[in-house]
Amino acid sequence: MRREEFGITEEQEINEFLSGMSFGFLGTVGENGHPRVTPLNYVYHQGIFYFHGSRIGEKMKHLKASPYVSFSVADEYAVIPSYFTDPSLACPATSYFKSVTASGRAEIVQDLEEKAAAFSLLMKKLQPEGGYDPIEASNPVYASRLRNVAVVKIAADHISAKFKFGQNLNTDKREQVLCGLESRGAQRDLETAEHIRSSIPVSRKKKTAMEPQAADDDY
Amino acid sequence: MRREEFGITEEQEINEFLSGMSFGFLGTVGENGHPRVTPLNYVYHQGIFYFHGSRIGEKMKHLKASPYVSFSVADEYAVIPSYFTDPSLACPATSYFKSVTASGRAEIVQDLEEKAAAFSLLMKKLQPEGGYDPIEASNPVYASRLRNVAVVKIAADHISAKFKFGQNLNTDKREQVLCGLESRGAQRDLETAEHIRSSIPVSRKKKTAMEPQAADDDY
Repeated sequence: MRREEFGITEEQEINEFLSGMSFGFLGTVGENGHPRVTPLNYVYHQGIFYFHGSRIGEKMKHLKASPYVSFSVADEYAVIPSYFTDPSLACPATSYFKSVTASGRAEIVQDLEEKAAAFSLLMKKLQPEGGYDPIEASNPVYASRLRNVAVVKIAADHISAKFKFGQNLNTDKREQVLCGLESRGAQRDLETAEHIRSSIPVSRKKKTAMEPQAADDDY
Repeated sequence: MRREEFGITEEQEINEFLSGMSFGFLGTVGENGHPRVTPLNYVYHQGIFYFHGSRIGEKMKHLKASPYVSFSVADEYAVIPSYFTDPSLACPATSYFKSVTASGRAEIVQDLEEKAAAFSLLMKKLQPEGGYDPIEASNPVYASRLRNVAVVKIAADHISAKFKFGQNLNTDKREQVLCGLESRGAQRDLETAEHIRSSIPVSRKKKTAMEPQAADDDY
């Protein structure tokens, strides 16, 4: 369930998040109707996710059985212990995170030029310092390799994002979480505190139709 | 595609990995046959994954449409640039990682005692320092909350693990990667180097029927 207060609609924030993360999880459905989740490196460019892999693996069998996929990328910033805000109940324990999930149809890229372009984008993302010959289909050394690898693209029909940083808390609880993070000072706690400060609390957002109160500890 | 040399069968290694990670990605299938991937916190205990969430969200609709799920947890240790082993081609670029993917049937837990036990395991994992009253269904404050939250368990029919740390490389290439990681010295590079050293290269493993040579940069 995605509650209004955690929703992110800013394209720039989504782009920045997807550019900064190196891998995500692809959901596919096999011939038997069962799902499969595969972690893989990806690059996101102008609304399209690209990834590559073996031409003969299980993932490709799934994509041939059904082109509909889901792709999710998430980054956990901090586990928030219950005692930051409650001295006795475990219930407030949660975690703060960013996640982006896309759905759409996967398409197997056949054109060598397009494959080369997708690999170029992926390399630019994962190896920005360079150190390799440009990936071009006209280079015979690359061409044979491009033929032997599968490149898949997902044109995302729908992208939803959730950046959860305590927007549902009232002012007192937010202060308690900030205080807890700042005194704990674990690896990303100060960064998390900054995200809390820059997130707009739901109380200051224009009220919209909210779903009924319910547990919200799924990402 | 899971190649033999990266396969991990040691239950203890899988348990340690799943205990050390805080969140994973659940793959479900909706009524329309399309998949959905949801990141969520989990606890793994004696072959069973537990997670919780809203009783009325999209994920629960999926589980009611089909109980078959896939659940994947992955951790990337290092992106390995192509120039560690090749001065001109981009192709050797890859990443080293651990991943565990389970499949099975999800079951919605109805019994309050079992819900309390699942939350106790989750809290013990994510908040090992304690700081909350024991979660017991006999405690009326917890009982009402337990009724209002969904707890789901997956009894894993099948678990596959892949810990990829250069097992496919020959001795020279392995040394080049080790040298590259040690001189780069980024956050987890030395830890990654230790994993390479303690992984058994495929050349020293008993040869088994290998799949044909193909790209292997999916996780």
